[in-house]
Amino acid sequence: MKTIAFVGLGAMGRPMARNLVKAGFTVCGYDVNPAALEDLKAAGGVAAGSAKAAFVGADAILLMVVNGAQAEEVLFSNAALEAAQASAVVCLMATCPPKQVQAIAERVAMTGRRFVDSPVSGGVVGASAGSLTIMAAAPEDLFEQVRPVLEAMGSRALRVGDKAGQGATVKTINQLLCGVHIVVAAEALSLAEKIGVDSKTMLDILVGTSAGSWMLKDRGPRMLEADPEVTSAVDIFVKDLGIVLEAGRETKAALPMTALAYQLFNSTSGRGEGAADDSQVIRAYRALNGTT
Amino acid sequence: MKTIAFVGLGAMGRPMARNLVKAGFTVCGYDVNPAALEDLKAAGGVAAGSAKAAFVGADAILLMVVNGAQAEEVLFSNAALEAAQASAVVCLMATCPPKQVQAIAERVAMTGRRFVDSPVSGGVVGASAGSLTIMAAAPEDLFEQVRPVLEAMGSRALRVGDKAGQGATVKTINQLLCGVHIVVAAEALSLAEKIGVDSKTMLDILVGTSAGSWMLKDRGPRMLEADPEVTSAVDIFVKDLGIVLEAGRETKAALPMTALAYQLFNSTSGRGEGAADDSQVIRAYRALNGTT
Repeated sequence: MKTIAFVGLGAMGRPMARNLVKAGFTVCGYDVNPAALEDLKAAGGVAAGSAKAAFVGADAILLMVVNGAQAEEVLFSNAALEAAQASAVVCLMATCPPKQVQAIAERVAMTGRRFVDSPVSGGVVGASAGSLTIMAAAPEDLFEQVRPVLEAMGSRALRVGDKAGQGATVKTINQLLCGVHIVVAAEALSLAEKIGVDSKTMLDILVGTSAGSWMLKDRGPRMLEADPEVTSAVDIFVKDLGIVLEAGRETKAALPMTALAYQLFNSTSGRGEGAADDSQVIRAYRALNGTT
Repeated sequence: MKTIAFVGLGAMGRPMARNLVKAGFTVCGYDVNPAALEDLKAAGGVAAGSAKAAFVGADAILLMVVNGAQAEEVLFSNAALEAAQASAVVCLMATCPPKQVQAIAERVAMTGRRFVDSPVSGGVVGASAGSLTIMAAAPEDLFEQVRPVLEAMGSRALRVGDKAGQGATVKTINQLLCGVHIVVAAEALSLAEKIGVDSKTMLDILVGTSAGSWMLKDRGPRMLEADPEVTSAVDIFVKDLGIVLEAGRETKAALPMTALAYQLFNSTSGRGEGAADDSQVIRAYRALNGTT
Protein backbone atom coordinates (compact mmCIF):
# COMPACT_ATOMS: atom_id res chain seq x y z
CA MET A 1 0.00 0.00 0.00
CA LYS A 2 1.70 3.12 -1.22
CA THR A 3 -0.79 5.29 -3.03
CA ILE A 4 -3.89 6.55 -1.27
CA ALA A 5 -6.93 8.26 -2.76
CA PHE A 6 -8.52 10.44 -0.06
CA VAL A 7 -11.96 11.94 -0.64
CA GLY A 8 -13.53 14.33 1.89
CA LEU A 9 -10.99 16.86 3.14
CA GLY A 10 -13.07 18.54 5.83
CA ALA A 11 -12.26 19.23 9.48
CA MET A 12 -11.43 15.54 10.04
CA GLY A 13 -10.21 14.49 6.60
CA ARG A 14 -7.71 17.26 6.15
CA PRO A 15 -5.47 16.39 9.15
CA MET A 16 -5.92 12.65 8.44
CA ALA A 17 -4.62 13.11 4.88
CA ARG A 18 -1.77 15.22 6.21
CA ASN A 19 -0.75 12.41 8.59
CA LEU A 20 -0.74 9.95 5.70
CA VAL A 21 1.61 12.23 3.74
CA LYS A 22 3.85 12.52 6.81
CA ALA A 23 3.96 8.72 7.09
CA GLY A 24 5.33 8.51 3.53
CA PHE A 25 2.21 7.64 1.54
CA THR A 26 1.46 9.27 -1.79
CA VAL A 27 -1.89 10.93 -1.16
CA CYS A 28 -4.06 11.99 -4.06
CA GLY A 29 -7.03 13.89 -2.65
CA TYR A 30 -10.34 15.28 -3.78
CA ASP A 31 -12.88 17.62 -2.22
CA VAL A 32 -15.48 19.97 -3.69
CA ASN A 33 -13.87 22.78 -1.69
CA PRO A 34 -10.86 24.17 -3.63
CA ALA A 35 -9.29 25.57 -0.42
CA ALA A 36 -9.08 22.05 0.99
CA LEU A 37 -7.22 20.91 -2.10
CA GLU A 38 -4.76 23.82 -1.82
CA ASP A 39 -4.19 22.77 1.77
CA LEU A 40 -3.42 19.20 0.73
CA LYS A 41 -0.97 20.40 -1.91
CA ALA A 42 0.78 22.61 0.63
CA ALA A 43 1.10 19.58 2.91
CA GLY A 44 2.78 17.56 0.16
CA GLY A 45 -0.21 15.77 -1.36
CA VAL A 46 -1.60 15.76 -4.87
CA ALA A 47 -4.90 17.48 -5.77
CA ALA A 48 -7.17 15.56 -8.15
CA GLY A 49 -9.83 17.14 -10.39
CA SER A 50 -12.47 14.61 -9.37
CA ALA A 51 -12.98 11.60 -7.13
CA LYS A 52 -12.68 9.36 -10.19
CA ALA A 53 -9.34 10.94 -11.12
CA ALA A 54 -8.10 10.43 -7.56
CA PHE A 55 -8.98 6.71 -7.73
CA VAL A 56 -6.70 5.96 -10.69
CA GLY A 57 -3.67 4.01 -9.48
CA ALA A 58 -4.69 4.07 -5.81
CA ASP A 59 -3.99 1.03 -3.60
CA ALA A 60 -6.54 2.25 -1.05
CA ILE A 61 -9.50 4.60 -1.38
CA LEU A 62 -10.31 6.40 1.87
CA LEU A 63 -13.64 8.16 2.29
CA MET A 64 -14.12 10.76 5.02
CA VAL A 65 -17.25 12.31 3.53
CA VAL A 66 -20.25 13.67 5.44
CA ASN A 67 -22.58 10.67 5.16
CA GLY A 68 -23.41 7.44 3.35
CA ALA A 69 -25.24 9.18 0.50
CA GLN A 70 -22.09 11.16 -0.29
CA ALA A 71 -20.02 7.98 -0.13
CA GLU A 72 -22.32 6.35 -2.70
CA GLU A 73 -22.18 9.40 -4.93
CA VAL A 74 -18.38 9.51 -4.77
CA LEU A 75 -17.94 5.78 -5.46
CA PHE A 76 -20.62 5.01 -8.00
CA SER A 77 -21.75 8.10 -9.89
CA ASN A 78 -20.13 8.25 -13.29
CA ALA A 79 -18.87 4.67 -12.55
CA ALA A 80 -16.00 6.28 -10.63
CA LEU A 81 -14.89 3.14 -8.84
CA GLU A 82 -14.41 1.31 -12.14
CA ALA A 83 -11.42 3.63 -12.75
CA ALA A 84 -9.62 2.14 -9.73
CA GLN A 85 -7.29 -0.88 -9.87
CA ALA A 86 -9.08 -4.20 -9.38
CA SER A 87 -6.95 -4.69 -6.23
CA ALA A 88 -7.93 -1.33 -4.69
CA VAL A 89 -9.43 -1.48 -1.19
CA VAL A 90 -12.22 0.93 -0.24
CA CYS A 91 -12.13 2.14 3.41
CA LEU A 92 -15.30 3.94 4.49
CA MET A 93 -14.28 6.02 7.52
CA ALA A 94 -17.28 8.35 7.81
CA THR A 95 -20.01 7.71 10.40
CA CYS A 96 -22.91 5.99 8.59
CA PRO A 97 -25.79 3.75 9.65
CA PRO A 98 -24.75 0.05 9.79
CA LYS A 99 -27.33 -1.05 7.17
CA GLN A 100 -26.17 1.60 4.74
CA VAL A 101 -22.55 0.50 5.20
CA GLN A 102 -23.60 -3.08 4.38
CA ALA A 103 -25.35 -1.87 1.23
CA ILE A 104 -22.33 0.15 0.11
CA ALA A 105 -20.05 -2.82 0.83
CA GLU A 106 -22.20 -5.02 -1.39
CA ARG A 107 -22.06 -2.55 -4.27
CA VAL A 108 -18.27 -2.27 -3.88
CA ALA A 109 -17.98 -6.08 -3.91
CA MET A 110 -20.00 -6.21 -7.13
CA THR A 111 -17.22 -4.19 -8.83
CA GLY A 112 -14.69 -6.76 -7.58
CA ARG A 113 -13.02 -4.43 -5.05
CA ARG A 114 -12.68 -5.20 -1.35
CA PHE A 115 -14.18 -3.09 1.43
CA VAL A 116 -13.18 -2.15 4.98
CA ASP A 117 -15.84 -0.68 7.28
CA SER A 118 -13.58 1.62 9.33
CA PRO A 119 -15.18 4.54 11.16
CA VAL A 120 -13.15 6.59 13.61
CA SER A 121 -13.46 8.11 17.07
CA GLY A 122 -11.40 10.94 18.52
CA GLY A 123 -12.63 14.10 16.80
CA VAL A 124 -10.58 16.82 15.18
CA VAL A 125 -8.08 16.72 18.07
CA GLY A 126 -7.46 13.00 17.50
CA ALA A 127 -7.36 13.42 13.72
CA SER A 128 -4.69 16.13 14.04
CA ALA A 129 -2.62 14.21 16.58
CA GLY A 130 -2.90 10.94 14.63
CA SER A 131 -4.41 9.40 17.74
CA LEU A 132 -7.80 8.30 16.40
CA THR A 133 -9.41 5.04 17.46
CA ILE A 134 -10.35 3.18 14.26
CA MET A 135 -13.05 0.51 14.58
CA ALA A 136 -12.52 -1.71 11.56
CA ALA A 137 -14.59 -4.64 10.39
CA ALA A 138 -13.00 -6.80 7.68
CA PRO A 139 -11.59 -10.29 7.22
CA GLU A 140 -8.26 -10.60 9.00
CA ASP A 141 -6.04 -10.70 5.90
CA LEU A 142 -7.64 -7.58 4.51
CA PHE A 143 -7.36 -5.80 7.85
CA GLU A 144 -3.64 -6.64 8.01
CA GLN A 145 -3.23 -5.26 4.49
CA VAL A 146 -4.69 -1.84 5.37
CA ARG A 147 -3.39 -1.72 8.94
CA PRO A 148 -0.29 0.41 8.10
CA VAL A 149 -2.56 2.93 6.38
CA LEU A 150 -4.94 3.07 9.37
CA GLU A 151 -2.08 3.30 11.85
CA ALA A 152 -0.77 6.39 10.10
CA MET A 153 -3.97 8.13 11.23
CA GLY A 154 -4.79 6.43 14.51
CA SER A 155 -3.09 5.16 17.64
CA ARG A 156 -5.55 2.28 17.95
CA ALA A 157 -6.61 0.44 14.79
CA LEU A 158 -8.83 -2.34 16.13
CA ARG A 159 -10.59 -5.12 14.28
CA VAL A 160 -14.08 -5.40 15.76
CA GLY A 161 -15.45 -8.04 13.40
CA ASP A 162 -15.41 -9.68 9.97
CA LYS A 163 -18.41 -8.12 8.33
CA ALA A 164 -19.15 -4.70 6.92
CA GLY A 165 -21.58 -2.94 9.25
CA GLN A 166 -19.94 -4.15 12.45
CA GLY A 167 -17.49 -1.26 12.55
CA ALA A 168 -20.37 1.12 11.93
CA THR A 169 -22.31 -0.55 14.73
CA VAL A 170 -19.52 -0.07 17.25
CA LYS A 171 -19.16 3.54 16.11
CA THR A 172 -22.93 3.99 16.41
CA ILE A 173 -22.85 2.74 19.98
CA ASN A 174 -19.82 4.94 20.64
CA GLN A 175 -21.85 7.96 19.51
CA LEU A 176 -24.83 6.86 21.61
CA LEU A 177 -22.64 7.03 24.72
CA CYS A 178 -20.89 10.26 23.70
CA GLY A 179 -24.12 12.08 22.89
CA VAL A 180 -25.95 11.00 26.04
CA HIS A 181 -22.90 11.78 28.20
CA ILE A 182 -22.82 15.35 26.84
CA VAL A 183 -26.51 15.86 27.54
CA VAL A 184 -26.37 14.45 31.06
CA ALA A 185 -23.35 16.66 31.81
CA ALA A 186 -25.50 19.60 30.70
CA GLU A 187 -28.38 18.40 32.89
CA ALA A 188 -26.06 18.12 35.92
CA LEU A 189 -24.44 21.52 35.41
CA SER A 190 -27.74 23.24 34.77
CA LEU A 191 -29.10 21.81 38.03
CA ALA A 192 -26.03 23.20 39.82
CA GLU A 193 -26.69 26.60 38.21
CA LYS A 194 -30.33 26.52 39.24
CA ILE A 195 -29.59 25.50 42.85
CA GLY A 196 -26.75 28.00 43.06
CA VAL A 197 -23.75 25.75 43.70
CA ASP A 198 -20.51 26.94 42.13
CA SER A 199 -20.40 24.95 38.88
CA LYS A 200 -16.65 25.20 38.40
CA THR A 201 -15.79 23.85 41.85
CA MET A 202 -18.33 21.10 41.44
CA LEU A 203 -17.02 20.12 38.02
CA ASP A 204 -13.47 19.92 39.37
CA ILE A 205 -14.68 17.49 42.02
CA LEU A 206 -16.97 15.36 39.87
CA VAL A 207 -14.54 14.60 37.05
CA GLY A 208 -12.45 12.73 39.65
CA THR A 209 -15.25 10.63 41.15
CA SER A 210 -17.38 7.74 39.94
CA ALA A 211 -19.55 10.43 38.31
CA GLY A 212 -16.81 11.12 35.79
CA SER A 213 -16.89 10.63 32.04
CA TRP A 214 -14.57 11.61 29.21
CA MET A 215 -17.24 14.01 27.97
CA LEU A 216 -17.86 15.61 31.40
CA LYS A 217 -14.16 16.41 31.60
CA ASP A 218 -13.90 17.64 28.00
CA ARG A 219 -17.23 19.39 27.40
CA GLY A 220 -18.04 20.39 31.01
CA PRO A 221 -15.66 23.38 31.13
CA ARG A 222 -16.94 24.60 27.74
CA MET A 223 -20.53 24.40 29.02
CA LEU A 224 -19.57 27.08 31.55
CA GLU A 225 -18.31 29.41 28.78
CA ALA A 226 -20.79 31.74 27.10
CA ASP A 227 -19.54 31.16 23.56
CA PRO A 228 -16.79 28.54 23.43
CA GLU A 229 -14.65 27.60 20.46
CA VAL A 230 -16.39 25.03 18.27
CA THR A 231 -14.55 21.72 18.35
CA SER A 232 -17.60 19.76 17.18
CA ALA A 233 -20.98 21.26 16.34
CA VAL A 234 -24.44 20.57 17.78
CA ASP A 235 -25.56 19.50 14.29
CA ILE A 236 -22.99 16.68 14.23
CA PHE A 237 -24.84 15.10 17.13
CA VAL A 238 -28.21 15.77 15.54
CA LYS A 239 -26.85 13.68 12.65
CA ASP A 240 -25.04 11.05 14.73
CA LEU A 241 -27.80 10.42 17.27
CA GLY A 242 -30.14 10.28 14.27
CA ILE A 243 -27.98 7.40 12.99
CA VAL A 244 -28.15 5.71 16.41
CA LEU A 245 -31.94 5.98 16.42
CA GLU A 246 -32.05 4.62 12.87
CA ALA A 247 -29.99 1.60 14.00
CA GLY A 248 -32.50 1.17 16.84
CA ARG A 249 -35.43 1.34 14.43
CA GLU A 250 -33.84 -1.18 12.07
CA THR A 251 -33.22 -3.71 14.85
CA LYS A 252 -36.29 -2.70 16.87
CA ALA A 253 -34.18 -2.02 19.96
CA ALA A 254 -35.45 0.36 22.67
CA LEU A 255 -33.27 3.47 22.99
CA PRO A 256 -35.19 5.80 25.31
CA MET A 257 -32.20 7.73 26.67
CA THR A 258 -30.83 8.31 23.16
CA ALA A 259 -34.23 9.43 21.92
CA LEU A 260 -34.43 12.01 24.68
CA ALA A 261 -30.85 13.23 24.21
CA TYR A 262 -31.62 13.63 20.51
CA GLN A 263 -34.57 15.92 21.33
CA LEU A 264 -32.32 18.22 23.30
CA PHE A 265 -29.70 18.47 20.54
CA ASN A 266 -32.41 18.83 17.92
CA SER A 267 -34.21 21.64 19.72
CA THR A 268 -30.89 23.45 20.21
CA SER A 269 -30.36 23.23 16.46
CA GLY A 270 -33.96 24.35 15.94
CA ARG A 271 -33.33 27.53 17.90
CA GLY A 272 -30.67 28.38 15.32
CA GLU A 273 -27.68 27.12 17.30
CA GLY A 274 -26.76 24.05 15.25
CA ALA A 275 -23.33 25.46 14.40
CA ALA A 276 -22.46 26.15 18.05
CA ASP A 277 -20.10 23.87 19.99
CA ASP A 278 -21.98 20.72 21.04
CA SER A 279 -21.39 21.64 24.71
CA GLN A 280 -24.01 24.33 24.10
CA VAL A 281 -26.78 21.75 24.29
CA ILE A 282 -26.79 23.12 27.86
CA ARG A 283 -28.72 26.07 26.35
CA ALA A 284 -31.69 23.71 25.92
CA TYR A 285 -31.74 23.35 29.71
CA ARG A 286 -31.34 27.09 30.20
CA ALA A 287 -34.26 27.60 27.83
CA LEU A 288 -36.36 25.07 29.76
CA ASN A 289 -35.41 26.56 33.11
CA GLY A 290 -35.64 30.20 32.08
CA THR A 291 -32.04 30.83 33.14
CA THR A 292 -29.25 32.27 30.99
CA MET B 1 -10.95 15.27 67.97
CA LYS B 2 -10.30 11.94 69.60
CA THR B 3 -13.59 10.25 70.33
CA ILE B 4 -16.04 9.49 67.57
CA ALA B 5 -19.66 8.36 67.85
CA PHE B 6 -20.54 6.42 64.70
CA VAL B 7 -24.17 5.52 63.99
CA GLY B 8 -25.12 3.37 61.01
CA LEU B 9 -22.76 0.43 60.60
CA GLY B 10 -24.04 -0.95 57.30
CA ALA B 11 -22.14 -1.84 54.13
CA MET B 12 -20.56 1.64 54.02
CA GLY B 13 -20.46 2.55 57.72
CA ARG B 14 -18.75 -0.60 58.89
CA PRO B 15 -15.51 -0.16 56.89
CA MET B 16 -15.56 3.60 57.53
CA ALA B 17 -15.66 3.01 61.31
CA ARG B 18 -12.91 0.42 60.97
CA ASN B 19 -10.68 2.97 59.19
CA LEU B 20 -11.27 5.46 62.01
CA VAL B 21 -10.15 2.86 64.56
CA LYS B 22 -7.06 2.14 62.45
CA ALA B 23 -6.25 5.85 62.37
CA GLY B 24 -6.19 5.91 66.18
CA PHE B 25 -9.61 7.33 67.01
CA THR B 26 -11.74 5.92 69.80
CA VAL B 27 -14.88 4.82 67.98
CA CYS B 28 -18.06 4.22 69.91
CA GLY B 29 -20.62 2.82 67.49
CA TYR B 30 -24.29 2.03 67.36
CA ASP B 31 -26.49 0.12 64.94
CA VAL B 32 -29.78 -1.74 65.33
CA ASN B 33 -28.07 -4.82 63.91
CA PRO B 34 -26.19 -6.66 66.71
CA ALA B 35 -23.87 -8.38 64.20
CA ALA B 36 -22.60 -4.97 63.06
CA LEU B 37 -21.76 -4.10 66.66
CA GLU B 38 -19.88 -7.38 67.13
CA ASP B 39 -17.91 -6.52 64.00
CA LEU B 40 -16.99 -3.11 65.37
CA LYS B 41 -15.84 -4.64 68.65
CA ALA B 42 -13.71 -7.16 66.79
CA ALA B 43 -12.13 -4.28 64.87
CA GLY B 44 -11.20 -2.51 68.13
CA GLY B 45 -14.18 -0.23 68.56
CA VAL B 46 -16.70 0.09 71.39
CA ALA B 47 -20.32 -1.00 71.03
CA ALA B 48 -22.93 1.32 72.54
CA GLY B 49 -26.41 0.26 73.66
CA SER B 50 -28.09 3.17 71.90
CA ALA B 51 -27.29 6.18 69.73
CA LYS B 52 -27.71 8.40 72.79
CA ALA B 53 -25.22 6.30 74.77
CA ALA B 54 -22.74 6.52 71.87
CA PHE B 55 -23.01 10.33 71.86
CA VAL B 56 -21.81 10.75 75.46
CA GLY B 57 -18.27 12.15 75.45
CA ALA B 58 -17.94 12.16 71.65
CA ASP B 59 -16.04 14.98 69.94
CA ALA B 60 -17.69 14.16 66.61
CA ILE B 61 -20.93 12.36 65.81
CA LEU B 62 -20.85 10.65 62.41
CA LEU B 63 -24.08 9.47 60.80
CA MET B 64 -23.99 6.93 57.98
CA VAL B 65 -27.66 5.96 58.25
CA VAL B 66 -30.00 5.09 55.36
CA ASN B 67 -31.74 8.45 54.95
CA GLY B 68 -32.62 11.79 56.48
CA ALA B 69 -35.57 10.46 58.44
CA GLN B 70 -33.27 7.99 60.20
CA ALA B 71 -30.77 10.78 60.89
CA GLU B 72 -33.52 12.84 62.56
CA GLU B 73 -34.67 9.85 64.57
CA VAL B 74 -31.12 9.11 65.74
CA LEU B 75 -30.33 12.72 66.68
CA PHE B 76 -33.57 13.99 68.15
CA SER B 77 -35.78 11.17 69.42
CA ASN B 78 -35.50 10.85 73.17
CA ALA B 79 -33.47 14.12 73.05
CA ALA B 80 -30.43 12.00 72.19
CA LEU B 81 -28.26 14.88 70.99
CA GLU B 82 -28.67 16.66 74.36
CA ALA B 83 -26.52 13.89 75.84
CA ALA B 84 -23.54 14.99 73.71
CA GLN B 85 -20.95 17.56 74.75
CA ALA B 86 -21.87 21.13 73.80
CA SER B 87 -18.74 21.19 71.61
CA ALA B 88 -19.67 18.02 69.69
CA VAL B 89 -19.80 18.34 65.90
CA VAL B 90 -22.44 16.40 63.93
CA CYS B 91 -21.29 15.11 60.52
CA LEU B 92 -24.14 13.86 58.34
CA MET B 93 -22.50 11.56 55.77
CA ALA B 94 -25.57 9.78 54.38
CA THR B 95 -27.07 10.82 51.03
CA CYS B 96 -30.10 13.04 51.80
CA PRO B 97 -32.02 15.71 49.88
CA PRO B 98 -30.40 19.17 50.26
CA LYS B 99 -33.51 20.76 51.84
CA GLN B 100 -33.71 17.99 54.44
CA VAL B 101 -30.03 18.45 55.29
CA GLN B 102 -30.69 22.18 55.83
CA ALA B 103 -33.60 21.35 58.13
CA ILE B 104 -31.53 18.88 60.16
CA ALA B 105 -28.68 21.41 60.38
CA GLU B 106 -31.08 23.98 61.81
CA ARG B 107 -32.36 21.58 64.45
CA VAL B 108 -28.77 20.66 65.38
CA ALA B 109 -27.88 24.37 65.67
CA MET B 110 -30.86 24.91 68.00
CA THR B 111 -29.21 22.49 70.46
CA GLY B 112 -26.02 24.57 70.26
CA ARG B 113 -23.98 21.94 68.40
CA ARG B 114 -22.26 22.56 65.07
CA PHE B 115 -23.03 20.66 61.86
CA VAL B 116 -21.03 19.48 58.85
CA ASP B 117 -22.92 18.45 55.71
CA SER B 118 -20.50 15.76 54.49
CA PRO B 119 -21.82 13.09 52.10
CA VAL B 120 -19.43 10.69 50.44
CA SER B 121 -18.78 9.15 47.03
CA GLY B 122 -16.84 5.97 46.27
CA GLY B 123 -19.10 3.12 47.35
CA VAL B 124 -18.20 0.11 49.46
CA VAL B 125 -14.87 -0.26 47.64
CA GLY B 126 -13.89 3.32 48.50
CA ALA B 127 -15.18 2.96 52.06
CA SER B 128 -13.05 -0.16 52.58
CA ALA B 129 -9.94 1.34 50.99
CA GLY B 130 -10.33 4.64 52.85
CA SER B 131 -10.40 6.35 49.47
CA LEU B 132 -13.81 8.03 49.60
CA THR B 133 -14.39 11.49 48.18
CA ILE B 134 -16.08 13.55 50.91
CA MET B 135 -18.01 16.63 49.78
CA ALA B 136 -18.19 18.79 52.88
CA ALA B 137 -20.03 22.05 53.37
CA ALA B 138 -19.16 23.98 56.54
CA PRO B 139 -17.44 27.20 57.60
CA GLU B 140 -13.69 26.91 57.09
CA ASP B 141 -12.68 26.71 60.78
CA LEU B 142 -15.18 23.93 61.40
CA PHE B 143 -14.04 22.05 58.30
CA GLU B 144 -10.42 22.24 59.47
CA GLN B 145 -11.49 20.89 62.86
CA VAL B 146 -13.09 17.74 61.39
CA ARG B 147 -10.68 17.33 58.50
CA PRO B 148 -8.46 14.72 60.29
CA VAL B 149 -11.57 12.66 61.00
CA LEU B 150 -12.74 12.85 57.38
CA GLU B 151 -9.28 12.10 56.03
CA ALA B 152 -9.19 8.86 58.01
CA MET B 153 -12.04 7.65 55.77
CA GLY B 154 -11.38 9.42 52.46
CA SER B 155 -8.51 10.32 50.18
CA ARG B 156 -10.22 13.55 49.14
CA ALA B 157 -11.98 15.62 51.81
CA LEU B 158 -13.10 18.69 49.90
CA ARG B 159 -14.90 21.78 51.12
CA VAL B 160 -17.57 22.61 48.54
CA GLY B 161 -19.22 25.49 50.38
CA ASP B 162 -20.10 27.16 53.67
CA LYS B 163 -23.69 26.19 54.12
CA ALA B 164 -25.45 22.96 55.05
CA GLY B 165 -27.17 21.60 51.96
CA GLN B 166 -24.33 22.45 49.56
CA GLY B 167 -22.52 19.17 50.21
CA ALA B 168 -25.79 17.32 49.71
CA THR B 169 -26.33 19.23 46.47
CA VAL B 170 -22.96 18.23 45.04
CA LYS B 171 -23.61 14.65 46.11
CA THR B 172 -27.06 14.81 44.53
CA ILE B 173 -25.55 15.93 41.24
CA ASN B 174 -22.89 13.23 41.60
CA GLN B 175 -25.66 10.64 41.85
CA LEU B 176 -27.49 12.15 38.90
CA LEU B 177 -24.42 11.53 36.73
CA CYS B 178 -23.69 8.08 38.19
CA GLY B 179 -27.26 6.84 37.77
CA VAL B 180 -27.67 8.11 34.22
CA HIS B 181 -24.23 6.79 33.24
CA ILE B 182 -25.22 3.30 34.42
CA VAL B 183 -28.48 3.39 32.47
CA VAL B 184 -26.88 4.65 29.26
CA ALA B 185 -24.21 1.94 29.55
CA ALA B 186 -27.06 -0.57 29.76
CA GLU B 187 -28.75 1.02 26.74
CA ALA B 188 -25.51 0.84 24.72
CA LEU B 189 -24.75 -2.78 25.66
CA SER B 190 -28.32 -3.91 25.06
CA LEU B 191 -28.21 -2.37 21.57
CA ALA B 192 -24.98 -4.30 20.92
CA GLU B 193 -26.70 -7.49 22.11
CA LYS B 194 -29.69 -6.83 19.89
CA ILE B 195 -27.58 -6.08 16.79
CA GLY B 196 -25.31 -9.02 17.51
CA VAL B 197 -21.93 -7.32 18.01
CA ASP B 198 -19.70 -8.98 20.58
CA SER B 199 -20.39 -6.94 23.72
CA LYS B 200 -17.15 -7.79 25.47
CA THR B 201 -14.92 -6.71 22.56
CA MET B 202 -16.97 -3.56 22.15
CA LEU B 203 -16.78 -2.70 25.83
CA ASP B 204 -13.00 -3.13 25.82
CA ILE B 205 -12.80 -0.62 22.98
CA LEU B 206 -15.29 1.93 24.25
CA VAL B 207 -13.92 2.36 27.76
CA GLY B 208 -10.78 3.79 26.11
CA THR B 209 -12.50 6.27 23.80
CA SER B 210 -14.39 9.51 24.26
CA ALA B 211 -17.42 7.27 24.96
CA GLY B 212 -15.87 6.22 28.27
CA SER B 213 -17.16 6.81 31.76
CA TRP B 214 -16.18 5.54 35.18
CA MET B 215 -19.46 3.66 35.33
CA LEU B 216 -19.10 2.09 31.87
CA LYS B 217 -15.74 0.68 32.95
CA ASP B 218 -16.97 -0.46 36.37
CA ARG B 219 -20.53 -1.63 35.72
CA GLY B 220 -20.19 -2.59 32.03
CA PRO B 221 -18.45 -5.94 32.66
CA ARG B 222 -21.01 -6.82 35.36
CA MET B 223 -23.84 -6.07 32.91
CA LEU B 224 -22.53 -8.93 30.80
CA GLU B 225 -22.70 -11.36 33.77
CA ALA B 226 -25.97 -13.17 34.42
CA ASP B 227 -25.96 -12.73 38.17
CA PRO B 228 -23.04 -10.60 39.32
CA GLU B 229 -21.94 -9.95 42.88
CA VAL B 230 -23.88 -7.05 44.41
CA THR B 231 -21.61 -4.09 45.07
CA SER B 232 -24.49 -1.61 45.16
CA ALA B 233 -28.15 -2.51 44.72
CA VAL B 234 -30.72 -1.31 42.19
CA ASP B 235 -32.81 0.04 45.11
CA ILE B 236 -29.99 2.38 46.15
CA PHE B 237 -30.43 4.17 42.83
CA VAL B 238 -34.21 4.12 43.13
CA LYS B 239 -33.62 6.04 46.37
CA ASP B 240 -30.77 8.26 45.13
CA LEU B 241 -32.33 9.27 41.81
CA GLY B 242 -35.51 9.89 43.82
CA ILE B 243 -33.49 12.39 45.85
CA VAL B 244 -32.17 13.98 42.65
CA LEU B 245 -35.73 14.37 41.33
CA GLU B 246 -36.83 15.83 44.66
CA ALA B 247 -34.04 18.42 44.39
CA GLY B 248 -35.30 19.17 40.87
CA ARG B 249 -38.87 19.57 42.12
CA GLU B 250 -37.81 21.86 44.95
CA THR B 251 -35.86 24.17 42.64
CA LYS B 252 -38.14 23.64 39.64
CA ALA B 253 -35.24 22.50 37.45
CA ALA B 254 -35.86 20.30 34.40
CA LEU B 255 -34.25 16.85 34.77
CA PRO B 256 -35.60 14.81 31.86
CA MET B 257 -32.68 12.37 31.57
CA THR B 258 -32.73 11.67 35.30
CA ALA B 259 -36.48 11.16 35.27
CA LEU B 260 -36.13 8.58 32.52
CA ALA B 261 -33.20 6.78 34.16
CA TYR B 262 -35.27 6.64 37.36
CA GLN B 263 -38.08 4.86 35.49
CA LEU B 264 -35.70 2.14 34.36
CA PHE B 265 -34.28 1.55 37.85
CA ASN B 266 -37.75 1.73 39.36
CA SER B 267 -39.24 -0.80 36.96
CA THR B 268 -36.32 -3.16 37.60
CA SER B 269 -37.10 -2.91 41.31
CA GLY B 270 -40.79 -3.40 40.53
CA ARG B 271 -40.05 -6.70 38.80
CA GLY B 272 -38.63 -7.90 42.12
CA GLU B 273 -34.97 -7.21 41.33
CA GLY B 274 -34.34 -4.28 43.66
CA ALA B 275 -31.69 -6.20 45.60
CA ALA B 276 -29.73 -7.15 42.46
CA ASP B 277 -26.51 -5.34 41.54
CA ASP B 278 -27.35 -1.96 40.00
CA SER B 279 -25.68 -3.07 36.74
CA GLN B 280 -28.74 -5.26 36.31
CA VAL B 281 -30.82 -2.28 35.26
CA ILE B 282 -29.82 -3.74 31.86
CA ARG B 283 -32.61 -6.27 32.52
CA ALA B 284 -35.11 -3.45 31.97
CA TYR B 285 -33.78 -3.20 28.41
CA ARG B 286 -33.85 -6.95 27.99
CA ALA B 287 -37.47 -6.92 29.18
CA LEU B 288 -38.31 -4.13 26.71
CA ASN B 289 -36.51 -5.86 23.86
CA GLY B 290 -37.69 -9.36 24.64
CA THR B 291 -34.11 -10.62 24.88
CA THR B 292 -32.55 -12.44 27.82
